[in-house]
Amino acid sequence: MSPPASLDVDLVGVTDTSAVPVPDPLTVNGIPAWRAKTAKMPTGVAAACSSDMFKSPICYTKPKAKRFDHRFSLEAKSRKASTLKTAAQYLKNPGLISLGGGLPSAEYFPFEHFDIKVPTPPGFSPEATRKSGTVLHAGKHDIQDGSSTYDLEIALNYGQATGAAQLLRFVTEHTELIHKPLYSDWQCTLTAGSTYAWDTALRLLCERGDYIIMEEYTFASAAETAFPLGLKAVGVAMDEQGLIPESMDNILSNWDEKARGARKPFVLYTIPTGQNPTGATQSAERRRAVYKIAQKHDVIIVEDEPYYFLQMQPYVGEDAKPVPPPATHEDFINSLTPSYLSMDVDGRVIRLESFSKVVSPGSRVGWIVASEQIIERFIRNFETSSQNPSGISQIALFKLLDEHWGHSGYLDWLINLRMSYTARRDSLVHACEKHLPREIAHWAAPAAGMFHWIEVDWHKHPGVKAGKTHAQIEEEIFLSAVEAGVLLSRGSWFKPDHDTVEEKMFFRATFAAASSEKIDEAISRFAGSLRTQFAL
Amino acid sequence: MSPPASLDVDLVGVTDTSAVPVPDPLTVNGIPAWRAKTAKMPTGVAAACSSDMFKSPICYTKPKAKRFDHRFSLEAKSRKASTLKTAAQYLKNPGLISLGGGLPSAEYFPFEHFDIKVPTPPGFSPEATRKSGTVLHAGKHDIQDGSSTYDLEIALNYGQATGAAQLLRFVTEHTELIHKPLYSDWQCTLTAGSTYAWDTALRLLCERGDYIIMEEYTFASAAETAFPLGLKAVGVAMDEQGLIPESMDNILSNWDEKARGARKPFVLYTIPTGQNPTGATQSAERRRAVYKIAQKHDVIIVEDEPYYFLQMQPYVGEDAKPVPPPATHEDFINSLTPSYLSMDVDGRVIRLESFSKVVSPGSRVGWIVASEQIIERFIRNFETSSQNPSGISQIALFKLLDEHWGHSGYLDWLINLRMSYTARRDSLVHACEKHLPREIAHWAAPAAGMFHWIEVDWHKHPGVKAGKTHAQIEEEIFLSAVEAGVLLSRGSWFKPDHDTVEEKMFFRATFAAASSEKIDEAISRFAGSLRTQFAL
Repeated sequence: MSPPASLDVDLVGVTDTSAVPVPDPLTVNGIPAWRAKTAKMPTGVAAACSSDMFKSPICYTKPKAKRFDHRFSLEAKSRKASTLKTAAQYLKNPGLISLGGGLPSAEYFPFEHFDIKVPTPPGFSPEATRKSGTVLHAGKHDIQDGSSTYDLEIALNYGQATGAAQLLRFVTEHTELIHKPLYSDWQCTLTAGSTYAWDTALRLLCERGDYIIMEEYTFASAAETAFPLGLKAVGVAMDEQGLIPESMDNILSNWDEKARGARKPFVLYTIPTGQNPTGATQSAERRRAVYKIAQKHDVIIVEDEPYYFLQMQPYVGEDAKPVPPPATHEDFINSLTPSYLSMDVDGRVIRLESFSKVVSPGSRVGWIVASEQIIERFIRNFETSSQNPSGISQIALFKLLDEHWGHSGYLDWLINLRMSYTARRDSLVHACEKHLPREIAHWAAPAAGMFHWIEVDWHKHPGVKAGKTHAQIEEEIFLSAVEAGVLLSRGSWFKPDHDTVEEKMFFRATFAAASSEKIDEAISRFAGSLRTQFAL
Repeated sequence: MSPPASLDVDLVGVTDTSAVPVPDPLTVNGIPAWRAKTAKMPTGVAAACSSDMFKSPICYTKPKAKRFDHRFSLEAKSRKASTLKTAAQYLKNPGLISLGGGLPSAEYFPFEHFDIKVPTPPGFSPEATRKSGTVLHAGKHDIQDGSSTYDLEIALNYGQATGAAQLLRFVTEHTELIHKPLYSDWQCTLTAGSTYAWDTALRLLCERGDYIIMEEYTFASAAETAFPLGLKAVGVAMDEQGLIPESMDNILSNWDEKARGARKPFVLYTIPTGQNPTGATQSAERRRAVYKIAQKHDVIIVEDEPYYFLQMQPYVGEDAKPVPPPATHEDFINSLTPSYLSMDVDGRVIRLESFSKVVSPGSRVGWIVASEQIIERFIRNFETSSQNPSGISQIALFKLLDEHWGHSGYLDWLINLRMSYTARRDSLVHACEKHLPREIAHWAAPAAGMFHWIEVDWHKHPGVKAGKTHAQIEEEIFLSAVEAGVLLSRGSWFKPDHDTVEEKMFFRATFAAASSEKIDEAISRFAGSLRTQFAL
C-alpha cells in the first residue's frame, strides 16, 4: 500500500515523520475540504477503487500491520486475481474500443429513475418523513448530466467486489471518524451482508477439523455457519461484561492438541457490544485485556458489531431523571466504547460492520475493516462468489447517507436511534422490575443492543426434584410461556460448545420490535407462566 | 412435497391419475385465474414460502425426481435447519407477542417510499421510457393499505433464503411457462446472483481433489470459482454446437482414478445457449445426447443460462430480408431451444437463472431451479451465508415484472431484447465479413448470447517459423490489437483444463456494449493489426 497520488506534496515520504508535520485527525466538518483535495471519484462501470483513495493523510503516518500469511486457509492461499478483471488494465488506453468484457449496455436496463423519500434531519420519525421528508432522485445518466457522482447506469451494471467507490468512500470516512485505526494499511470492502462476510472469513482462515473460539453463549446462526464447514466451537466463560479474558487464556494455554484432535484455535468470534444473546457489552478495559490475550496466542479477532450504534444511555431506573443525549457529534463519538479495531496495533482484527440494525437489513449491504492483506483475500473470494452487493441497495444507501445526510446527518440519525432504543430498553427493564418474580428471575439492564438476558433459577423448579433435566425444564418453561402468549428464546439455543454442561438457565427477550405496551403485556404473561411453573 | 392445501378438491389424490382429468398446462393468459385459486400470498416479515405454493396442478401429475443423497458433499450433508428459524413455527399462534427474534422495527427504516420509472410496453426504448414510462410506487405500508401484496416494511427487513414469496411466485410461474418440468417436485429459490449460486453448488456437491467437467473453453470466472476449492477441470471437446457428447462419454468411460488421483467426476458445468466464450448454442438434439451421457454416468448437470433469452433471429447475411419477429408469445416460447431442465426426467439438472443479461446485473438477484431435495440444501446454505438477496432489488423487480409488466409484458420485453441483440450480432458479423482477412480468420454467426468467437490460423503466423509458441503468438496478436485501439479477449483465458495443449487459437469479441459504428471501427482495427501481424 502507498498513499494515493492525490495526497499533498508535503506528505510524500511520510516514513520520515521528523520532517513532516503530523496531519490533523479527520473530523466530520473537515471532510468536505479533504474530499476536495483527493482524486476525482472514479465513475466508470465497475471502476476499480480502494479505501486508499479516501483515507486522510494522518493514516499514512502510522506503522503498517503485521502479515498473517500463516493464518490463511488452503482455499485462501490458492485464490488468484481474476483473469478477465486483469484485462481491464487496458481500458485506460485513450480511444480504445473494448469488445473485451461481457457487460450489457445500460440502454437495456428497464429502470429510468428511482425517487426515494427519506427523512430530512432532524425530522427522523415516520410521521415527520411522510410530512416533510426529502425525495432523492437517482437517474440513469446523472454522472453524464453532472448532477451526481453515481447513477443507475453504473449501479445497475456489474460492479467491483469492493463495492462502488461512491459508497466505499462513505464507509471508509465513517470508519476513520469513529475508529481512528492505529496502523496505516487498513482498508474496507463492502460485503453482501455481515452473515456472508462471516461465512467467508471462516473459509479464508479455517480448515475442516479446526476449533474456533466463541463466547459461551453466542448468536446461534454464527455457530451454525461454522459447523457445516467441519468446525467446532470452544466456548469462553462470560460475566456481565461478556467474555472473560482469563477463561480464554486458560483454554488456549492448556490446549491439548491430542485430546482435542485439533490444532490450537486462532480465530475468536466475538460480539463485543450488546452481545447476542446476553446483551453484555465489554468495557474498554475488558477489550484491552482480551486483545492482549489474542496477541499472546496470535489469535485473529473477528468482531461482529451490528449493535455498536445501539449503545444506549445509562440505565437509571424508572423514577430517576433521564440522562440528556450527547450534545455534539464529538460527545457522541466519545461516548462509544472503543472498538477492537480502534486498539488494534497488529492488524489482527477483522471488523464486521452492518447496516442491518441501523438502516435496513433488507439492503444486504455491510462492510468489513481489516488490514490490506486480509481485505485483499476477501475481495478475491467475493469476485467469484457474491461479486458485489446489490447496486440498487448501494445507490439507495449512497443517496441517503452520502448525498443527503452526509456524515453529520448520519450521526444525528444514530443519536436519534440511541435515544429510541434507550426508551425501548427502559420499557423492557421496567416491565421486568414490575412483573417478574425476583425469587427466581435475575437480570442486568443491557447497555447496548436489542437483547435482554433473563436468568431463571431452575434449581428451584419443582421438576428438579422429580428428576427432570435442565433441557426438560427449559423446554417446559418455554412452552408454558408460549401457552401464555409470549415467545422468548431459550438460552440453550445459543450454546455453541456442545462439550460443556449448562449450569445456569437463561431466556432471551428482545425489545427491538414490539411496542412498550406489548412489551409490558408480554413480560406480565411471562411472569404469570413462571409463577405457575415454579408454583410461587 | 405435497400439493398445497389450496388446490382444487378434484386434485386431491393426484397419484391416481386414472380418476382425475389431466389439468391444462399453465399459460400466460391462464395465470390470473390460477392465482385467484391459490392460497393467499404470505405477507408477513420473513414469511416462509416455497414454489409449491405457486406451481399449477399439472405439476402434481408428474412422477417425482430421483434422490441424489450420494452426490452431496460432507458440508452439504452436515447442514441443519436454523435453530432460530425453527422457533418461527410458534409465530402462528394467534395473539402471541414475540420477544423472540431480533428483527428491527420498520419505523427505523429511513426509506418511506421508492418511486421507480420503468418502460410502459411496448415502448421499451430509453426515449419512450423517458417520455411515457410508468412510475411504480413502493411504500412502507402498502400491504396494510391494501394497495399491494409487497411493501418496504417487508422488503427492508430480513427475509427468507428462498427470497420473498412475491418474487418467488413470479419466477416459479415463469419457470413453469417456459420449461414445463417433467417431474413433480421441482422448486425454485432466489439467489444473490448466479455466480454465488455456482460457488454454492460446488460446495454442496464437491470435495477438495475432485474434478468437474467443463467445456474445453468456458467462462473463466466459473473455473476460477472452482480452483481455490481444490477442484480441477476436465475439458470436453467442442464443435460449433458446443460440447460434444462423445467426448464427454470418452472421458468418463475411460476415467482412470489412479492416474488422475481423483474419483470419476459427476458435475458438468455447461452454458448451453450462447456459450461464453464461444457463442455456441447446443441444439435440442445435442442436449438430449448430452443428457443421455449424464444419465449413463450419473452426472449432475449445472446449466448456467444467462443468455437463454438472448437467442436471436436466424442469421441471414447483410443483403437478405430479415426474419420477422415471433408473432405471439407462444411462437416466441416455441422458438427457444429447449433447456436441459425441460428434458430432465431424473431431477439431475440444476438450472442457474439470472436477470443480469435481461434486466440488470446490479440487482444481484437470480434464481435456481432443481429438485426439492437439492433446493433444500441450497436454502440451508443460504440461511447462514447470503441470507437472502437484497430486498430493495427484490421489490424493484417485483414491481416491474409482476405488478406492472406481468408475464405478458415481460415476454414482450424479452422479444424486444431478442430483436435488439439480433441487430447487434448482425453488425458484428457484417463487420467481420467486411474487414477480416479470410485467409486466416474464421467464424460462425452466433445464434445466441453476447459473444463472437473468431478463430485465427496461427500456424500461418510468421512467428511460428521463428520458433515462437502458441502463447507468445496469441499475446503478440492481442497486444498488437490493443496497440491498434481494440480490446478483445484471448481464447486461452477461457481454457479451464490446464493439462491439455491448445491446438487452435481464438479471440472473443462481444457485441453487447458498443454501438454498431464502434463495432465496425473496432473490427476494422483488428483486421488491420491482423494483416500487419501475418504480413498479409
